Formats: sequence, C-alpha cells, structure tokens
Amino acid sequence: MVIKEGLRPGGRSARVQASVHSAVHELLEVHARSSVTVPMIAARAGVTPSTIYRRWGDLGALLADVALARMRPDSEPADTGSLRGDLRAWAEQYLDEMNSEPGRMMMRDVQCSQTPGYCVSILSAQLQAIVDRYPADTAPSVDRLINLLAAPTVFRILFSNTPLTVAELHALIELALKA
Amino acid sequence: MVIKEGLRPGGRSARVQASVHSAVHELLEVHARSSVTVPMIAARAGVTPSTIYRRWGDLGALLADVALARMRPDSEPADTGSLRGDLRAWAEQYLDEMNSEPGRMMMRDVQCSQTPGYCVSILSAQLQAIVDRYPADTAPSVDRLINLLAAPTVFRILFSNTPLTVAELHALIELALKA
Repeated sequence: MVIKEGLRPGGRSARVQASVHSAVHELLEVHARSSVTVPMIAARAGVTPSTIYRRWGDLGALLADVALARMRPDSEPADTGSLRGDLRAWAEQYLDEMNSEPGRMMMRDVQCSQTPGYCVSILSAQLQAIVDRYPADTAPSVDRLINLLAAPTVFRILFSNTPLTVAELHALIELALKA
Repeated sequence: MVIKEGLRPGGRSARVQASVHSAVHELLEVHARSSVTVPMIAARAGVTPSTIYRRWGDLGALLADVALARMRPDSEPADTGSLRGDLRAWAEQYLDEMNSEPGRMMMRDVQCSQTPGYCVSILSAQLQAIVDRYPADTAPSVDRLINLLAAPTVFRILFSNTPLTVAELHALIELALKA
C-alpha cells in the first residue's frame, strides 16, 4: 500500500478518500471488525468495490490507512511553556490514546500494513515540534524520546497486564531529559 | 485461553499437547499461516478437532500457545561474569530473535491471545535471573530493564522501518545501569 499524502483538497481523489474513510468509521461503529467487507464499505461510500481494490489493494491496507489517518494529530502538541511540561502533556495524551480501544485497534491495523514506519514518522514530527520550541535547552534527540517514552507506553499496552502509570511516565521523562 | 503450566510430564495431557504443538510446527513449515485450520492440525496430531477446541478454545489461542512455548527459553541467560556483559548478551539475543520472521509472527500471535501478560512474565523471569547473580551491584529493577531494553527493541521492529542497532542497544543498557 502506498499512503497517498498531499492529495489536492477537494479533488475527486480526495472526495473518494473522505467518503470511503467515513464509510469505514460508520460501519465500525455498528459492526464487528471481522464482519466488515469491501463490498459493504463500497456500497456505503457510493463507490464500486474495484475503486477500493485499485486504490488500497485490500481490506487490511484500507483499515490501516483509516487507522493512520485517525492517528494523525489534528493540532500541534500542547505548548505549556517548558520542555518538561510539553513532554508530559504529550506523553500523557499518547498513553491515554493508545490505551483506548480505538488506539489498540489502530496499533493492530498498522502492524498489518505495509508501511508501519509511517507510524514512527508521525510521532517523530510531533516530538520534533516540541524539541524545536526550546533551542536553548539541551534537548534529547527525537530517537531517544521515541525509545524512552513511546516504546514503553506501547509495549506495556500490547504485552503486559498493566499499562504504564503516569508516575512511571514522568520518571521516564526525567531519564530522557538527563544529559 | 488458560495456558496450562506444570503439566505432569509424560501424562496424557502432556502427550496431547506435545503432539498438537508438533503438528502446528510441521504445518506452518509448509503452509501459509492463513491456510492452516483446526481440522488439519487435528488430523496431523492424531486427535479430534473437538479435543483442540475443548483445550484451546480456537485456532488463535492455539497459535498463541505454540508461539509462547517457542518463546519460553530452553536455558538460563548466558553468564558472562558481569551484569553489563549478561545484559548485553541477553539484549542482543532478544533483538535477534524478535527481529526474525518467527519472532515477528510470535509477537502477532501473542497480541491476539487472551494472556499477553504472560509474555512479560517470561521476560521478567529471565531478567530477574540475571539481576540475582549480582547482589553486590546496585542493579536496575526488572521493570526498568523491560521499559528500557525490551520495549524499544520490540517497538522499533513493529512500528519503524529500522530495528535498533547494537550500538543503540548498548547505549540503552548504559542508561539502564545508571543510578
């Protein structure tokens, strides 16, 4: 699957995408994931199934694209006035979102997609935006923030019985901020 | 799914388990995962499908049990004579194993199981065994080792285009060892 970025807003292609994405959202609200099919989505979106196959390849790729679009943040990370504060606000929101049912489903879909790296590039852009606000601080690298904040958040949700606590998250932020 | 631990070795139950696990291994060597079915496994293992359904619940639970059994290490972590050396040996092997095709499949199966926490308990036991060898050192906690070593290893494999390098892994070990 190639994820189409930079579609001309309002173009035919963008309208098809918006309509198909909405159809997926609506269907997932009333149907179990395993019972949603491409023909159902096509009927609801008012396109032919072959439009969906041509554009996304298969159902898994379409679900991953929808999940990634949902994950793409609508706004800049919160600006609290300090690097520590921004990282705390970002990390607490990330923990909340990933630990929700849509967050878990998103992680599952993204792993099955051909472009899981796209996930880290979204995170990286958000963390880079935070780091860039504080040029005077000796800020940690974005890779370090991903390894120390995003990775334990996700790992604990996927493979442990207990997600990170906010106290653990704050301790990891202190560790990331250490020279 | 309840994972049956402490089966009496050689008992009927243990023989059924061994036979079903072998059948799964053999079938996965020649068939795509998505084409393996419970009746195929039952036929190869010489049991009835209902034996499998009664014991494991469904195919996903059985695959997860097989994946977890494969992940359970056959031996103690390598003893190199130092805490740093043992952690390096363990972390490098873990990175290698998780980054392999069976490792990736295992992670996928385990996430779909009802007992993903079992995964962390296996890791914890290995790391605890290492830490216990060096009572004189102010060793990091097992939770810290999981957050700083296992989590980035797995996160980068699942969600990024590039796994951790050995140099990054060593830097994370140094960070984990810092007071």
